[in-house]
Amino acid sequence: MSYVVNIILFEEFETLDVFGPVEILGRLPEIFKLNFISLDGGIISSSQNVRIDTSTYNNNNNSEENILFVPGGMGAREKVNDEKLIHLIENINRESKYIMSVCTGAALLAKAGILTGKKATTNKRAFNWVMDQGKDIVWIKKARWVNDGNIFTSSGVSAGMDMTLGFIEHLMGREKAIEISNGIEYKWNEDREWDPFAELYGLA
Amino acid sequence: MSYVVNIILFEEFETLDVFGPVEILGRLPEIFKLNFISLDGGIISSSQNVRIDTSTYNNNNNSEENILFVPGGMGAREKVNDEKLIHLIENINRESKYIMSVCTGAALLAKAGILTGKKATTNKRAFNWVMDQGKDIVWIKKARWVNDGNIFTSSGVSAGMDMTLGFIEHLMGREKAIEISNGIEYKWNEDREWDPFAELYGLA
Repeated sequence: MSYVVNIILFEEFETLDVFGPVEILGRLPEIFKLNFISLDGGIISSSQNVRIDTSTYNNNNNSEENILFVPGGMGAREKVNDEKLIHLIENINRESKYIMSVCTGAALLAKAGILTGKKATTNKRAFNWVMDQGKDIVWIKKARWVNDGNIFTSSGVSAGMDMTLGFIEHLMGREKAIEISNGIEYKWNEDREWDPFAELYGLA
Repeated sequence: MSYVVNIILFEEFETLDVFGPVEILGRLPEIFKLNFISLDGGIISSSQNVRIDTSTYNNNNNSEENILFVPGGMGAREKVNDEKLIHLIENINRESKYIMSVCTGAALLAKAGILTGKKATTNKRAFNWVMDQGKDIVWIKKARWVNDGNIFTSSGVSAGMDMTLGFIEHLMGREKAIEISNGIEYKWNEDREWDPFAELYGLA
């Protein structure tokens, strides 16, 4: 099985929200094809002024399954009110086998109705704001990441790497996740309930 | 004091080598201005197919100090033999107050003569190849990162984040480094001698 990962970028996305997971998924190029998508295509800048070349979305007509990946960042604060972007996320969601968000990317999923009735988590310092973006969502305050069905949501920024390794474990087993984390000399926090930042920011 | 960070990109650089440190330095925009530099400018692709917009190098004539930042990746294997790139690195080095490399970026610094007489480290799986790229360098096999004078070199890929937080500590103190790592919900491996990967890959 191979997957097309549609990574939604917008102005002022958070750099590591995207490129931590991209480092991990990009190590399996036969399994994951990475598409950097924005509403209008062209160059999109992160909050850290990284300028990335993006395309517009085209549903692939191949045998590959789609994955929807949504990062957070300061830009998400404004983008929850961008109807075109929310509509794009809804559309890609309908054509996707798996959904992933990092940090406040969960606010965009919530706004698009994708998290309704689901368990999810998000950035610990923006928790209350994110919770206001959707209804009937079971928000988990103390979690490095949360998996409910085909949806994976992570805590802030660097937690996206741990979640993505958890997603690799889900698809291909723990040994493959460890192999990749060793390859990037990263010590995977593989306990999804490990979350010192929930306490640090007064949520636990 | 503010700094211009000249980040040298080349085809098939490793994504997280660059964007882990960029996430950290980019959180202090009044102190670090990030320049993404390549030999000819334009779009450069990482090994994980991230397409980044780059500029050519121009020494700034302002009051800011320069920092040279060199990532590694599969592209570094070929680039150690690219005289133009090595010459560019030599030139920027001469105009820089601090030098940083991640992973096999140390091979490019070694080739440019920047590490001669210095202590340094690099990727644990490519150690022997990197050691062949320079002479009279004191290679430290078991180290998350090494600091010798104004030069900071890190182990593979994700180690660049720990080194960059160590660099922030060096410039601004431990409290600032912890503040940034908490901001990205990252548990900083702040012991520079912590290195389970040296043993894993038979170096310790």
